[in-house]
Amino acid sequence: MKLKDILNGITGTDPIWVDKARARTEQLVMPPRALGRLHDISEKLCGILETLEPAPVAKAVVVMAGDHGIAGGGVSAYPQEVTGAMVQTFLADGAGINAIAKQAGADVWVVDMGIIPQLDAAAMPGAGGFLVKKIARGTKNFAEGPAMTRREAQRAIETGFQVASDLFRSGADILGTGDMGIGNTTPSAAIGAVVTGASPADMVGRGTGVDDDGLQRKIALIQKGIDVNRPQQSDGLDVLSKVGGFEIGGIAGLVLAAAYHRRPVVIDGFISTAGALIADCLCARVRDYMFAGHRSEEPGHMRMLQHLNLEPILDLGMRLGEGTGGALAMGVIEAAARMFREVMTFEQAGVPGKE
Amino acid sequence: MKLKDILNGITGTDPIWVDKARARTEQLVMPPRALGRLHDISEKLCGILETLEPAPVAKAVVVMAGDHGIAGGGVSAYPQEVTGAMVQTFLADGAGINAIAKQAGADVWVVDMGIIPQLDAAAMPGAGGFLVKKIARGTKNFAEGPAMTRREAQRAIETGFQVASDLFRSGADILGTGDMGIGNTTPSAAIGAVVTGASPADMVGRGTGVDDDGLQRKIALIQKGIDVNRPQQSDGLDVLSKVGGFEIGGIAGLVLAAAYHRRPVVIDGFISTAGALIADCLCARVRDYMFAGHRSEEPGHMRMLQHLNLEPILDLGMRLGEGTGGALAMGVIEAAARMFREVMTFEQAGVPGKE
Repeated sequence: MKLKDILNGITGTDPIWVDKARARTEQLVMPPRALGRLHDISEKLCGILETLEPAPVAKAVVVMAGDHGIAGGGVSAYPQEVTGAMVQTFLADGAGINAIAKQAGADVWVVDMGIIPQLDAAAMPGAGGFLVKKIARGTKNFAEGPAMTRREAQRAIETGFQVASDLFRSGADILGTGDMGIGNTTPSAAIGAVVTGASPADMVGRGTGVDDDGLQRKIALIQKGIDVNRPQQSDGLDVLSKVGGFEIGGIAGLVLAAAYHRRPVVIDGFISTAGALIADCLCARVRDYMFAGHRSEEPGHMRMLQHLNLEPILDLGMRLGEGTGGALAMGVIEAAARMFREVMTFEQAGVPGKE
Repeated sequence: MKLKDILNGITGTDPIWVDKARARTEQLVMPPRALGRLHDISEKLCGILETLEPAPVAKAVVVMAGDHGIAGGGVSAYPQEVTGAMVQTFLADGAGINAIAKQAGADVWVVDMGIIPQLDAAAMPGAGGFLVKKIARGTKNFAEGPAMTRREAQRAIETGFQVASDLFRSGADILGTGDMGIGNTTPSAAIGAVVTGASPADMVGRGTGVDDDGLQRKIALIQKGIDVNRPQQSDGLDVLSKVGGFEIGGIAGLVLAAAYHRRPVVIDGFISTAGALIADCLCARVRDYMFAGHRSEEPGHMRMLQHLNLEPILDLGMRLGEGTGGALAMGVIEAAARMFREVMTFEQAGVPGKE
C-alpha cells in the first residue's frame, strides 16, 4: 500500500470505548483504580480494540535491521559487521530478544531492511522468520548528505507497513518493535533532536558504550548532519531520508500499520521511539495505538517519549534494543488485559463497598 | 519449627556465585550489562540458588489474611467484613491477585492467619488452596495495648514459615508474598515508623482511600500505639506483637522460610514490606533472598525499601496489595533468569567484540 493511502486510512480511537472501560474499572472489586497504570493500559487496549474483553494473546516482535553510513565515523563501540552477525544470532535463537520474547510468548520476526551482508530469507526456531526486504546495503553517511533518497524513505516505511499488515492478517493481536544496526543511536538522536527541538547534546548518549571522545564525535556528526541536510521538522519523510535509517523507517511503518489495523504496538527503546517519532510526524493519531515498553538508559529517550505523550511501562536501566524492552512490557500489558477481563465486580463478588 | 531454630538455620548467600554469574554476564553477546536490572536480578538468583542455570519456574503467591482491632478506629475506607468477603473472592477466583497470578503462572494460596469469620479450608481453582491457620479472630486495638501477645507473634511467624516450607518442599521455586486485611496499612505504617525511625506522618498514606480526616486519625492512632506500647526497634517479635498483625507475622515467616530454604521470595507492597522488616529485624541475612516486586503508591514504602536496601522492580502506581505487585514482577524475574540461561556468549555466537 502507498504511504498516502495508509495515512488516509488511519483514524484515532473512539473515546466512547475508553469511557465504557473506565466505567467497568470502577466496578472492579478493589479500591478505586488501585492497580494504577494497569487500569490505564487495559482501558487504552479497550479503546484500540473496541471491546470490553481485550485479549492481546498472539504476540510478535519485529526486529528491523539496517546498516548506517555514519557508523564509519567512530560513533559505536562495535565494528559495523556486528549488525549482520547479530542478525545471524537472532536466527540462531541466541540473542537477548530471543530469550525475552520466548518468556513473553512472542514470535520473533527479523527483517533485513538494509544491512550490508546478503543473507538468505530463513525460518526461525519457533513461529518467526527472517525476511529480506533490503532497501539498500546500508545508508549513506548523513554527515555528508542525505542518508537515503526520499523515495527510499517512503519504501522503508511502506515495507514496514506491509510486514506488520501481514502479521496482523495472520492473527497477531499485538506487535512489539525492535531494531538492530550498529551506529543507529546516532541517526535516532538526530531524529529526536530535529523532531523534538532538543539540542543534539541533550539527545545523545553512549549507545553500546562509546567513550567521551565518541560521545563528542556523535554530537558533532549529528550537528553537521542537521546543518548539511536541513531536515524539515514537520515532514517525517524528509527527516527520515536526511538523517534516518532503513530500520527506523521500517519501525515507522510498523507503527502506522498498528494504527491502520487498529491494533496495539509496543515501542521498545531509543531507536524504536525515533521510528515512532517519524510515524507521529506523518500522522499524530498513531499515539492512540502505541505503548512505550520501557525507559531506555539513553538520556534523550524521555524527551522523545514526552513529545509523544507516552509514559514508559518499565524502567529497568535497559539499553540493548532488539525489542527487548517492548517484549518484556508485553507481560504487563497482557496481565492488565487479563485483570480487566477476569476480576469480578463488587456485585458479582458480593463484597460491601466503601463505608 | 521453632523461631530460634529457624534463625539459627539461616545463612547469607555465598558471594562466589554472584561473582561467577557476573563473569558469565560479561560474556553474553550484548554490550556490557545492556539489560540493566535484568543482570542484577539474574545474578542475585544465581547467588540464592547456587547455580548458573537459575530457573524459577514453579511459582506460588501466598496471600496472608488477618483482621485488625485498629480497624474500628476509622482508619479504612471499607468496613471490616470486607476482609472475609475478599478471602471468599480469592477462593472464587475473582480478585486482582487471581488474574495477575494466572498471568504469571503462579498458584495462589490463601492463609487465614487471623480473620474474624470462620471459613473452612478449601481447594482453589488451579493448584492453590485455602489454609486455616487462625492465630485469633483479629488482633486487639494496638492504640490501647499490644495487638497480640509475644507468644502469638511467634506463632504467626512460625506458621508462615511452615506454610512456605511446605510449598518449597512440594516444588515451589519462588514465592510471592501477599496480604488481605482491612485496616492493615495502619499497623504496617506503625512497623515502618518503629523500624526505620521515620515519623508516623511520613509513613502513613491513604491505604484503600481514606479522606483527610482518616489520614489524621491514622497518624494519631499510630503515634498513640507507639506511645502506649513502646515497641523495641531491635526486637522484631516485640514490634510485631505490639503494633503488628497476624498476616504481617505470617509474611515475616514466609521471608524467613525463603532464606532458610535458600529460595527467592518476591515482596509485594506496603504490608508485605512491613512483614519483611520484621523478618529483617530477626535476621538481616534475609535481604539476600528478597526481591522487591514494586514500589507501592503508599508514600512510606520507599523508606521501608531503602531500609532493606532493596530497589523495586516495577513502579506502576499500584496500591492493591493481595500480592499483585510481586506476582507481576515474577514475569520480569523469570525473563531475567531465562535471558541469563539462554543468551549465547560472544564466542558461541561468533560475534566480534568491542573495537
